[in-house]
Amino acid sequence: MFSPLIRQLIDALRILPGVGQKSAQRMALQLLERDRNGGLRLAQALTQAMEGVGHCKQCRTLSEEELCPQCADPRRDDSLLCVVEGPLDVFAVEQTGYRGRFFVLKGHLSPLDGLGPEAIGIPELEARIKAGSFSEVILATNPTVEGEATAHYIAQLLAGSGLVLSRIAHGVPLGGELELVDGGTLAHALAGRRPIV
Amino acid sequence: MFSPLIRQLIDALRILPGVGQKSAQRMALQLLERDRNGGLRLAQALTQAMEGVGHCKQCRTLSEEELCPQCADPRRDDSLLCVVEGPLDVFAVEQTGYRGRFFVLKGHLSPLDGLGPEAIGIPELEARIKAGSFSEVILATNPTVEGEATAHYIAQLLAGSGLVLSRIAHGVPLGGELELVDGGTLAHALAGRRPIV
Ligand SMILES: [Zn+2]
Ligand SMILES: [Zn+2]
Repeated sequence: MFSPLIRQLIDALRILPGVGQKSAQRMALQLLERDRNGGLRLAQALTQAMEGVGHCKQCRTLSEEELCPQCADPRRDDSLLCVVEGPLDVFAVEQTGYRGRFFVLKGHLSPLDGLGPEAIGIPELEARIKAGSFSEVILATNPTVEGEATAHYIAQLLAGSGLVLSRIAHGVPLGGELELVDGGTLAHALAGRRPIV
Repeated sequence: MFSPLIRQLIDALRILPGVGQKSAQRMALQLLERDRNGGLRLAQALTQAMEGVGHCKQCRTLSEEELCPQCADPRRDDSLLCVVEGPLDVFAVEQTGYRGRFFVLKGHLSPLDGLGPEAIGIPELEARIKAGSFSEVILATNPTVEGEATAHYIAQLLAGSGLVLSRIAHGVPLGGELELVDGGTLAHALAGRRPIV
C-alpha cells in the first residue's frame, strides 16, 4: 500500500501516545505533502531532546540545564516544596498558580515491580529537604493506591522533622492520574490540602 | 516552565495534524521519560522519509521507489484507472477492495489560487492514459465544489476518447473530504459510480 520509507514513518509515529494507525497515516502523508521542512525540524528537535535532556540536579525534573526553570527562578517561595510523581505533574500543579518549589520522584513505590524508595528517588528527596529551608512539604503524588502509599511512606519518613506535611485534598478523583485532572479541580485540591501527620 | 530543548520539541510536535499544545506536551515528556530510543527512531524515520520520498513516476503518488506498490503489482486490473486528489485517497479507495490502477492529482483545480490543469498534473494524467490500455476512468476527486469541477474538466477533456468515464456515486457526503469517509460508504459510492458523459 505504501512504499517502505512511508511505512517505516507510519510505524515510528505510532509510538506517540494517542496515535493509532489511521492518525499515523494522516500525519505521515500530510508532512510529506505539505510540510517537509516541518518534518525535518521535528526530526532535529527529537534528536536534540532525546540525546540532550537529562534531569535538573535539584528537583530531578527533565531538563538539559543544570537547573530547570522552576529551580533557577529566584522569586519562588522557598518555604514550600511540592512532591510529584513526574514532570507532567509539575506542569499540572504549576497551572494552578502554585509558585513554591518542586521535587519530582521517578513515579511511585511499587514493591511488586521491585521499585523501592531508592528506585524512585527518595534519598535525593531527603537530601533536597535537608539542603533547603522548607516549612511545608506538599505530597502531591497521584490519588491512586500506589500514590497514596508513596505519600504515606514519605510522611512517615519525615515525621518528627518539624516540617508541616500535607496531602492534596481529595478533590482529585480517586484512581485518576494527576496529569489528566483539569486545572480548576487541581487548584481546589491544592487549596484544600490537609496535614497528614 | 520547560527547558529550551523540551519547549523546542513541543513546538515541533504541533506541526502534526490534530496535535494541540496539551497533546504535544504529553508526547514530548512521555518520549523523554519512557522511550528515548523510540524518539530517536522516529527522528530517523522522519529524516529518511522527508529527504527520500518522491513520487511514483507512473501514478504520481508518494513513493521513494520509481513505481509505487500499486503500479508495480502485475496482478491489478489494467483496464480501470481511478483518479484521486491525493495519496490518502489512494489508501481510502484501496480499502474498499478496488484493485485497478490509480492516478494521483496534486489536489484539485483552483483558479483563484492560480492552480490550473498543469499545476495539478492533468498533462501527466493524459500521458498516463495514452500509454495505458484503460477502458474506464473513474473520477474519484472529492465531492466538493472544486472536486466536482475538476472531475467535470477531466471528463470534458477525455470526451470522445472512447473511454467510459464515471464519477463515484453521491453516497459520499457533499462538501466532505474523501479521505475522511468510512470504508463502507466509499465502497458503496464506488459501486454506484455512473458514466458522466
Ligand atoms: Zn529543577
Ligand atoms: Zn504508482
